[in-house]
Amino acid sequence: MLQQFQHYITTTFSFLKGKKIVLAVSGGIDSMVLMHLLMRSGYTFSVAHCNFQLRDQESDQDEEFVKMTCQEHYIPYFINRFETQKYADLHKKSIQIAARELRYNWFDELMHTNGYDFLLTAHHIDDSAETFLINFTRGTGLEGLMGIPQQNKNILRPLLPFSREEIERYAQENSVSWREDSSNASDKYFRNKIRHHILPILKELNPNFLNSFQQTLIHLQEAQCLVEEASSMVYEDVVEETNDEKRFDLNKLQKLPHKTTYLYQWLKPYGFTAWNDIFDLTEAQSGKQIFSEDYRLLKDRDFLILSKKTEPQNESYEIQEQLKQIDFPINLRLSDQSHIISHSKGTIFVDKLSLKFPLILRKWQEGDYFYPSGMQGKKKVSKYFKDEKFSLIDKEKTWLLCSENEIIWIVNHRADQRFLANEKTQHILKIEVL
Amino acid sequence: MLQQFQHYITTTFSFLKGKKIVLAVSGGIDSMVLMHLLMRSGYTFSVAHCNFQLRDQESDQDEEFVKMTCQEHYIPYFINRFETQKYADLHKKSIQIAARELRYNWFDELMHTNGYDFLLTAHHIDDSAETFLINFTRGTGLEGLMGIPQQNKNILRPLLPFSREEIERYAQENSVSWREDSSNASDKYFRNKIRHHILPILKELNPNFLNSFQQTLIHLQEAQCLVEEASSMVYEDVVEETNDEKRFDLNKLQKLPHKTTYLYQWLKPYGFTAWNDIFDLTEAQSGKQIFSEDYRLLKDRDFLILSKKTEPQNESYEIQEQLKQIDFPINLRLSDQSHIISHSKGTIFVDKLSLKFPLILRKWQEGDYFYPSGMQGKKKVSKYFKDEKFSLIDKEKTWLLCSENEIIWIVNHRADQRFLANEKTQHILKIEVL
Repeated sequence: MLQQFQHYITTTFSFLKGKKIVLAVSGGIDSMVLMHLLMRSGYTFSVAHCNFQLRDQESDQDEEFVKMTCQEHYIPYFINRFETQKYADLHKKSIQIAARELRYNWFDELMHTNGYDFLLTAHHIDDSAETFLINFTRGTGLEGLMGIPQQNKNILRPLLPFSREEIERYAQENSVSWREDSSNASDKYFRNKIRHHILPILKELNPNFLNSFQQTLIHLQEAQCLVEEASSMVYEDVVEETNDEKRFDLNKLQKLPHKTTYLYQWLKPYGFTAWNDIFDLTEAQSGKQIFSEDYRLLKDRDFLILSKKTEPQNESYEIQEQLKQIDFPINLRLSDQSHIISHSKGTIFVDKLSLKFPLILRKWQEGDYFYPSGMQGKKKVSKYFKDEKFSLIDKEKTWLLCSENEIIWIVNHRADQRFLANEKTQHILKIEVL
Repeated sequence: MLQQFQHYITTTFSFLKGKKIVLAVSGGIDSMVLMHLLMRSGYTFSVAHCNFQLRDQESDQDEEFVKMTCQEHYIPYFINRFETQKYADLHKKSIQIAARELRYNWFDELMHTNGYDFLLTAHHIDDSAETFLINFTRGTGLEGLMGIPQQNKNILRPLLPFSREEIERYAQENSVSWREDSSNASDKYFRNKIRHHILPILKELNPNFLNSFQQTLIHLQEAQCLVEEASSMVYEDVVEETNDEKRFDLNKLQKLPHKTTYLYQWLKPYGFTAWNDIFDLTEAQSGKQIFSEDYRLLKDRDFLILSKKTEPQNESYEIQEQLKQIDFPINLRLSDQSHIISHSKGTIFVDKLSLKFPLILRKWQEGDYFYPSGMQGKKKVSKYFKDEKFSLIDKEKTWLLCSENEIIWIVNHRADQRFLANEKTQHILKIEVL
């Protein structure tokens, strides 16, 4: 097996020579075989071992075993002990998820701090088949049936094409020692159940199962590429992107034969999960919206508008009298003037003596009203927005400049009559958006 | 369960009312439940039962049971006894495949002869999951992971959304009787192994497995739609179709990011299986070709050319002296003329007395030569083809008209000098392509 493994790794991963490599080693058979293979193939690397402290002295013995092996071969090593159970309890996560997060967070940090180019892990094709079956059992889309990727950014899995059986043969032929993880033998975890009860039957039904599986993965990965290609070809036609929004043209979308599938493809990266609600949204009233953790999808007349969730609407900022300029949350300059030049959407001239400092910058609230410049009487801000055809997002982006609770200016849109300077005003204050 | 089943069938299959329906009934629980459901929902239908004669008297008892049930309810029935084992031996097929072929061939015939609109079968979601897992175990592409379709032309499967468990509950609640198929309990067949050993574990790991599976199928079916959409969008750009050929432009193909995947999608329907050879063909020498059962894919300079396999190249046809016209394998008219009008590619005038009847129509063979009209001396036909830039397919489509083994005419292309009529010819024969 050594030759076969060596041939594969030296041809496929020739780019690794001269790179800074760190290898994740649990002490189990897979990672010990990969460590042996790397040594025998002349690679220089360091080792990182996670002690999750979940199996008492067994865990510590694993740690000791990895440490001794590294010392014996003069391989630099990093060891980290995690309070996995505590972390899981604290974050209300399963032990498996907790261990995974701790592990990859630490690896990230380790690579960044020490300038490693690649992290190597010892996953193999049986792991990939297990992952496929886990996702399948739980329910998934095509993207959940891609197996484990051989390379994912700077994580490489050189043993991925090999089976557990081949790795065992390698270990035997090359007298690699390793430690058995007692939790692997238990059926406690979902993965172990699949490993011990499903995979053996598949291999019995098709003795060539792992090869067939590799071919299946290739076919599915190719199908996924075409799905993404169709998705992006159609995207260009249907979606307009601006700096902070994507606008999905519903008239164009409705003409597509698989509109829900396209929406799913396009919106998946934004963390949405309530797909039926989203599909209903295409037919819903203007103003309806659906949220993911970070994004908002809004039905606005003939469009669905995707945007980042905005800040809470109750934020407000004070502008002290002595300030000449503010840079947050928007850029405003305030300057004393001897005369009025010309009002515009982005510049107003007000009577400074009529203002009560500090001025307030805040968002619109239900019940707000103002006295629009050039008009008689007052108007609800909501009515003004409606007349000006503001979308929900427009409304949320708009700042109101206020004196106490009275609106001075719907910034960048319309001034309030009450505060505007006129030819009699003695202290003219110019306020402009930069 | 009755209400739930009835609600589903009457809403989803309302179009069945008034149609001529035949129901496939084995006597097992699934088909007996469907039969009960159809009766209780007021459908009129006939029953078709296959006796595969594989389980001796058990098979005959099944037949008797179905017959009695139909008679009891005045339902017309068809019964067919098959020599399944003999058929399987004769055609070297597995019993499962043999039974399937016999069954569907008979159903086809039955529907055609008796004017049935729809065949109903009692497949359910467990069957669909089994089919998924069978294909997955053997290795497949996305198209093998679509489950069983609810409708496939005129075959309908009204119980497809329901589980085996729900069907069992229906049978119990409604006192439906059925016969247990003893072969279902054995692990002899691939499907039974998956039914008894894999599905129960998946359902244990995820008690909601069948619902998740239904969602998975929907996602995969949608992905498959996009795959086909990408495939056909790109196809239009890369492929030129003529009556009997499809020409894949390699220059355009090479620019595609997933060219092998597209080729796979496009060529799959033509029965090709040697995918690696096909992918190599894009880089191969002109003239190389790969065959499926009925089709041929030829590398010809900057194209891959797909065409139906041509007839064997050794066919030849005689043209007797008295014939005025032939219609096969091509249309030729032979007529005596008093003078030469004008030679053209499709019409020649020859000296009838120089010909030896019957004339022969045949394809080109290695070593053929002729005396091209308007040229001095002889020329190999292969050289002529090359100079005229004939593709392999052009060569194969071209007929030679011969007198014994001497070429008179490369039909529709070039006459032979030796047989052409001139002003001294007494018996002028005009031969023209119609």
